[in-house]
Amino acid sequence: MEINKVGIVNVTGYAGVELARLLSQHPQVELVSVTGRSTAGKRLDEVFPHITGSNLIINTELGDVNLAFSAMPHKESAAEVLPLLERGIKVVDISADFRLKDADKYPEWYGFTHPAPQALEQAVYGLPELHRRQITTARLVANPGCYSTGAILALAPAVEKGLVGNHAIIDSKSGISGAGRTLSLKTHFAEVNEDATAYALEGHRHLPEIIQELNLLQPEQPSSITFVPHLIPMTRGILTTCYAPLTGGIAADKRGEAEIRQIYLDFYKDEPFVRVTASPPHTKHTLGSNLCLVYPTIDTRTGRLIVISCIDNLVKGAAGQAIQNMNLMLGLPETTGLEAIAIYP
Amino acid sequence: MEINKVGIVNVTGYAGVELARLLSQHPQVELVSVTGRSTAGKRLDEVFPHITGSNLIINTELGDVNLAFSAMPHKESAAEVLPLLERGIKVVDISADFRLKDADKYPEWYGFTHPAPQALEQAVYGLPELHRRQITTARLVANPGCYSTGAILALAPAVEKGLVGNHAIIDSKSGISGAGRTLSLKTHFAEVNEDATAYALEGHRHLPEIIQELNLLQPEQPSSITFVPHLIPMTRGILTTCYAPLTGGIAADKRGEAEIRQIYLDFYKDEPFVRVTASPPHTKHTLGSNLCLVYPTIDTRTGRLIVISCIDNLVKGAAGQAIQNMNLMLGLPETTGLEAIAIYP
Amino acid sequence: MEINKVGIVNVTGYAGVELARLLSQHPQVELVSVTGRSTAGKRLDEVFPHITGSNLIINTELGDVNLAFSAMPHKESAAEVLPLLERGIKVVDISADFRLKDADKYPEWYGFTHPAPQALEQAVYGLPELHRRQITTARLVANPGCYSTGAILALAPAVEKGLVGNHAIIDSKSGISGAGRTLSLKTHFAEVNEDATAYALEGHRHLPEIIQELNLLQPEQPSSITFVPHLIPMTRGILTTCYAPLTGGIAADKRGEAEIRQIYLDFYKDEPFVRVTASPPHTKHTLGSNLCLVYPTIDTRTGRLIVISCIDNLVKGAAGQAIQNMNLMLGLPETTGLEAIAIYP
Amino acid sequence: MEINKVGIVNVTGYAGVELARLLSQHPQVELVSVTGRSTAGKRLDEVFPHITGSNLIINTELGDVNLAFSAMPHKESAAEVLPLLERGIKVVDISADFRLKDADKYPEWYGFTHPAPQALEQAVYGLPELHRRQITTARLVANPGCYSTGAILALAPAVEKGLVGNHAIIDSKSGISGAGRTLSLKTHFAEVNEDATAYALEGHRHLPEIIQELNLLQPEQPSSITFVPHLIPMTRGILTTCYAPLTGGIAADKRGEAEIRQIYLDFYKDEPFVRVTASPPHTKHTLGSNLCLVYPTIDTRTGRLIVISCIDNLVKGAAGQAIQNMNLMLGLPETTGLEAIAIYP
Repeated sequence: MEINKVGIVNVTGYAGVELARLLSQHPQVELVSVTGRSTAGKRLDEVFPHITGSNLIINTELGDVNLAFSAMPHKESAAEVLPLLERGIKVVDISADFRLKDADKYPEWYGFTHPAPQALEQAVYGLPELHRRQITTARLVANPGCYSTGAILALAPAVEKGLVGNHAIIDSKSGISGAGRTLSLKTHFAEVNEDATAYALEGHRHLPEIIQELNLLQPEQPSSITFVPHLIPMTRGILTTCYAPLTGGIAADKRGEAEIRQIYLDFYKDEPFVRVTASPPHTKHTLGSNLCLVYPTIDTRTGRLIVISCIDNLVKGAAGQAIQNMNLMLGLPETTGLEAIAIYP
Repeated sequence: MEINKVGIVNVTGYAGVELARLLSQHPQVELVSVTGRSTAGKRLDEVFPHITGSNLIINTELGDVNLAFSAMPHKESAAEVLPLLERGIKVVDISADFRLKDADKYPEWYGFTHPAPQALEQAVYGLPELHRRQITTARLVANPGCYSTGAILALAPAVEKGLVGNHAIIDSKSGISGAGRTLSLKTHFAEVNEDATAYALEGHRHLPEIIQELNLLQPEQPSSITFVPHLIPMTRGILTTCYAPLTGGIAADKRGEAEIRQIYLDFYKDEPFVRVTASPPHTKHTLGSNLCLVYPTIDTRTGRLIVISCIDNLVKGAAGQAIQNMNLMLGLPETTGLEAIAIYP
Repeated sequence: MEINKVGIVNVTGYAGVELARLLSQHPQVELVSVTGRSTAGKRLDEVFPHITGSNLIINTELGDVNLAFSAMPHKESAAEVLPLLERGIKVVDISADFRLKDADKYPEWYGFTHPAPQALEQAVYGLPELHRRQITTARLVANPGCYSTGAILALAPAVEKGLVGNHAIIDSKSGISGAGRTLSLKTHFAEVNEDATAYALEGHRHLPEIIQELNLLQPEQPSSITFVPHLIPMTRGILTTCYAPLTGGIAADKRGEAEIRQIYLDFYKDEPFVRVTASPPHTKHTLGSNLCLVYPTIDTRTGRLIVISCIDNLVKGAAGQAIQNMNLMLGLPETTGLEAIAIYP
Repeated sequence: MEINKVGIVNVTGYAGVELARLLSQHPQVELVSVTGRSTAGKRLDEVFPHITGSNLIINTELGDVNLAFSAMPHKESAAEVLPLLERGIKVVDISADFRLKDADKYPEWYGFTHPAPQALEQAVYGLPELHRRQITTARLVANPGCYSTGAILALAPAVEKGLVGNHAIIDSKSGISGAGRTLSLKTHFAEVNEDATAYALEGHRHLPEIIQELNLLQPEQPSSITFVPHLIPMTRGILTTCYAPLTGGIAADKRGEAEIRQIYLDFYKDEPFVRVTASPPHTKHTLGSNLCLVYPTIDTRTGRLIVISCIDNLVKGAAGQAIQNMNLMLGLPETTGLEAIAIYP
């Protein structure tokens, strides 16, 4: 069996080092090269002592690989990814630089003009539950945002069936690791421990990709979505609670609830990493695993659909999903290296 | 100056002992009697070592007092409160037993037939920001639920002006102390630490009081409210995020935002315990204080009103508000004993 | 390759369910039977939703297995283990019932007369770093206590060389999961979050096994050990700080520090699950892994040896070490199923 | 009654802002001036929204005050304090710059030559339990370090009686706020949440002041003290566990324990802010209060004294003690403004 050689551009953020952890344990690829800026020249296990058994040195340039992950920040990632593609290297980009199909959205949401609009057409949005076939043959996969993953997987089955109106509310609660490893008062322990707060009320950058993907499922119903992210005092995990008026003839009663549940079970019946739960899910039940737990129900008093999803923001919300995409791109079984059961308690 | 004598029925839950803490420091009342069941006979400071400087013994029966707080669980509280009222003692009831005006709601929401429907008329819902005048002369005040306090204070100014449609979504995130001191796997440290979850999706008991109070503000617009509470891993604090379609001619732009903000500033301009903030508030900024922080804004993309509120669930959400009610009932300045600034960080 | 069938007696505590998680992912054994009391009749994944992909039903009696783990509480475990041994089933006992060689210690420390003192001779103390050879042929292995594992691995190299006097102080800081899944105010979230406390000052039950094992390493120097455990607000992990007067001719300077470090590196050079670190270790670097991190140093001002160790109390401190023992008992490579890298952050 | 005017140099760290919180609620002083560097020009309540009811602007220079607190970092504080003293302003210095009597210790422990050795003689070490009389007349009080406060109060009664040998071990566990508000990976939420670690094993800067003060109590017995601080995942609180060989004829039994306890009760009998507890204390019982809880006991197996203390590191360990010193210096009742009961849970 041929072992694929893979590399990570910018291993020193939380998504990057989580990729390193998962790839170190992947039986069919070999992590042969990692890059970083401030830490270049150091051993990977010196900077991240939990990565045991690795001899890798953090370099400034990526070595010879078949596939690369870019864990660069947005705007900077495209400049790293485009040359890799030209060298014939497949890329999974963790950043947002290739997620939006409409290049005009980049100035609006990210404050820069996209350097390669044509690459946006080539890129595939890396949510395997929606785009598995295209990912399999893609050379460039844009790994979804963490919030986007939780929100889209929560709403997709209902949106596709036309069962929800266009007035969805998405209220997400994220652990602090989602804010990254860069120092900030917003992630300073004494500031965020024992605290909850909402942020990005003027519009979070994951919103346009959520709208883009839901609109693909139901083009005639342009989404009017409100998305508010919150930070809560835990390290990993995103709980997303979605609210939408129920349309399309589903009754607001126990029977309707069973119908909705069946629609979700059908939609996700062959998905290895999505489970429709029988009761409200816990983020703890996803810690360290690539699972997304989804729980649809109906507020029978008001006729609203409520769907709750849970993911580990660094696994299904970032590095795990990136490896799921890699598996598809390399022709490996989709679940390889991602079988770990969540750590509880 | 005459010192009022007050007592606490069932001091051993978190609301009860928080009352004891705050009353111990109140300059114009004396806490002279506390009751408890399993702990009867012990000194208060033996059961709760943080209550320093108290000589109180926990008794089974309440002594001679001018005003009593009942921190009994719902259904059991009425049986304690009614005899106290007959003895001429004023009562602030922390439980839900006198919050709902419609006695028929008790079988539906609490599973019991109310023992004294006539007392429901006499009782005043103890949210001073809405019912200050009636509280001043009340003999029985029903202290609001913790979630209800945060939700009603977030929505009241907009509802009163008829600015929100009837499709409000209330998404609350509560610290674990809100689940009480009774042992349960749901409050077992290793289960809830590093976890977030939604609960009571079939309908939380604080919903009928939220609807009751908002309908009082805007009777012609019956509320269709969805309320989903969540538990997040912190001890104290409730963050409530409310979403509602904006109606009534407010523009979905910066100007509309300023109008809404002014409406909130006007509504709460004389309130000692509500502050309209200029940015999304943090629960940490209410820890140990009786403040409710309220932040109204508009999702200009969708024309929705978003209002966020923060309280300490054991202070403004329970014991602090009960003392605010007591101050009004006893003719004391409303803020007496409640001036503590939040503890940060 | 023959697959060994294994079972778990009392799967419903944290050690039991952690065994189930790790065994579910073990490539060379099959978990075929689990028992529980209050949960008997339910599916394992109904009680513990994170254990995905299992069809096991929790039974009252253990089925046909080659090797069983008992995760029963002490005193009750012996009654389960002894009949299993008679049936020819190998046993790893997570409880304390076979850890102490001296039967007289059981009335003193555990309050019961041991039912089978002769079995204590047969049992092997399951710390592979000290007793690997005997474990390989054992029919009954007594899995060490969580604190004992961290403390003995911290002190063993120095004690064996006679380098520490008999005045060791062991100060341990444990996450709350170490206190088990049984409900108690001591593990109630709001009580222990944002709190630190010492307990068992009159003598913790892990002390006699620590003394027993250290005395085996240095019989002429009876241990005078003080051990104080503390609970700190995290779920998993034990940090143990050991202090001992340095004897045996090691200088209290940088050179002595290097000597001590070399002694530790030599002692653990072939150990797959002990790493001597170059700086003070973090419990986070062991989360979910079977590693014990050990850091020896010298307080050069006072001539004291300080050794710090970190483990995940549920892995190397319980279920992981039990599987390490199982691997040895079944002739499997010692690290099989235990290769997971710690989850960070 | 004359109101004293006080000010804070460098209000923007955690000790500074905690001073602001406590002084805002102090009935007999008025906080009239605060300084800060990066935040100069802003309103205090803009930078710290929990400080409600203040109109103060953060300035670069201190205004006209009777007494000033310096919350500058060490080395920088002396340069601020010396001119204030020359202006006739009394000073409580939160930094370490005047804590050590021996100027030679500054190059050794802090890496700088002390700019005003003569001021070290004038300065009084601000632990009222040991130096109350001198504080009363002092113009410059050096507020003790947080660890030092917990350790000295734990050991002082035994050391003074000559009951402990010189081999004390001090093992402290601190909440993260003790590491300050300056950004660092060591205080980044995702790094320290669910983590415990030891640090400063080469010698923490609070050690020389601990030795200085204990030696004053028992000069003929030079202290050989090992001190190891740990960071644990909570915001506030220090738990200190001290171990020392018991000497001086106290028996290592229950009777000896009672004797030791009586010695502690006697030593602290008139102290308003030290309580000798009857069981191992919890840091939670000091949250937000100026109390130090002390629990002495004996390890009867080994004849060692164990003393545990708890403080809130930002109150008795910093700002609260500073105000206690201020009260003494200004001739106010010592407990004024410091009566708040701990917040629980």
